[in-house]
Amino acid sequence: MATIKVHGSPISTATMRVTATLYEKELEFEFVSINMRNGEHKKEPFISINPFGQVPAFEDGDLKLFESRAITQYIDHEYADKGTKLTSSDSKKMAIMSVWSEVESLHYDKVASILVWELGIKTLFGIPLDSKVVEENEAKLDSILDVYEKRLSESKYMGGECFTLVDLHHLPSLHYLMKSQSKKLFESRPYVNAWVDDITARPAWSKVLAMIPN
Amino acid sequence: MATIKVHGSPISTATMRVTATLYEKELEFEFVSINMRNGEHKKEPFISINPFGQVPAFEDGDLKLFESRAITQYIDHEYADKGTKLTSSDSKKMAIMSVWSEVESLHYDKVASILVWELGIKTLFGIPLDSKVVEENEAKLDSILDVYEKRLSESKYMGGECFTLVDLHHLPSLHYLMKSQSKKLFESRPYVNAWVDDITARPAWSKVLAMIPN
Ligand SMILES: N[C@@H](CCC(=O)N[C@@H](CS)C(=O)NCC(=O)O)C(=O)O
Ligand SMILES: N[C@@H](CCC(=O)N[C@@H](CS)C(=O)NCC(=O)O)C(=O)O
Repeated sequence: MATIKVHGSPISTATMRVTATLYEKELEFEFVSINMRNGEHKKEPFISINPFGQVPAFEDGDLKLFESRAITQYIDHEYADKGTKLTSSDSKKMAIMSVWSEVESLHYDKVASILVWELGIKTLFGIPLDSKVVEENEAKLDSILDVYEKRLSESKYMGGECFTLVDLHHLPSLHYLMKSQSKKLFESRPYVNAWVDDITARPAWSKVLAMIPN
Repeated sequence: MATIKVHGSPISTATMRVTATLYEKELEFEFVSINMRNGEHKKEPFISINPFGQVPAFEDGDLKLFESRAITQYIDHEYADKGTKLTSSDSKKMAIMSVWSEVESLHYDKVASILVWELGIKTLFGIPLDSKVVEENEAKLDSILDVYEKRLSESKYMGGECFTLVDLHHLPSLHYLMKSQSKKLFESRPYVNAWVDDITARPAWSKVLAMIPN
């Protein structure tokens, strides 16, 4: 019986960060589907794990966690001997990785998550998009990807020479953005484009995509 | 000669996170003042360390970092044997600490930094505040502090039983907010209020405040 439980939605980007990590680490887990349309994430028992009422929530035996990036880090450390190693053990390499991890969370995802909502989720549910919001955030993404292009011309992956959590954390929003008009921003930059092709081709990632209902 | 250099501004909250950590660890450093009014943070040589043009930037010998929370983590790990220990070495305790570290960065500071700008920095420079923005963000902070009150009724500090980076990361915005109308949101909650009193009384923190020009 799996002791690891992920409570979330297979179409939620934050949930996908956690399942992608579990597949990379080749760990078994139970997926507890949260019905977000019914507001299950805003009620007990869910909010006793995450008081902010957002998916995912995570259990490993007695340990209960939330916040996707805290969960992925825990999984990589706790199961260091399983599957792909997703962080470095060298202090200086780890520091560089942390810098780009913050960049993903505080610069890239701040903008990408708005575009995912406008161009991905709203389209999925037939809600009209706000073109001013799209335009503003595509302009911001454009500048951020200039920094990414330079970084990826100097380093094979965003966090360093190997695939790490930093790259993995980008995968869920890339899934939505590469199916939207924003994909031009990625495809027009050779290093960014090659990086997207590389990381989206990982076998663990196709397992995450296979969880999405048709 | 100090090999650690902090490039930043003594009134910048993100810079203060780094100097607070260095004082807690009892490390010597050189402070390189960046003239933000002249836009020094948007030009070379600064942007060769931080391509996003924001303070702080950090050097330790050859290693160049940016993003305040990546820097504080690096300092605590690299100088594990110096001063106050600011993280846990136990995997489960560290995981809980990471959850609340994400909460500070993605929930609390998202709102607090807007209020610091409106009620702290704008007042400092005599710019009129936007009362609608203040109202909206105070309402958000109010809900977030409900979660904090519950957390602090169960745990002495936000990250666990000891003072850690999670608490420290809150100090710079608390400095501004406790001098503003928003202080009522902290003072009206007994556990939050006691926590603010405790962490703002740390000797390392008074050294950071002493760096602010009159
Ligand atoms: N910082 C959180 C973000 C979680 C998040 O935004 N989850 C979304 C789905 S991807 C959600 O639950 N949205 C519903 C809501 O915020 O009410 C994490 O990384 O886990
Ligand atoms: N996430 C960054 C934020 C840095 C930041 O916002 N710095 C502000 C001063 S506190 C700044 O440089 N603002 C000028 C700008 O963004 O142009 C960090 O934690 O280091």
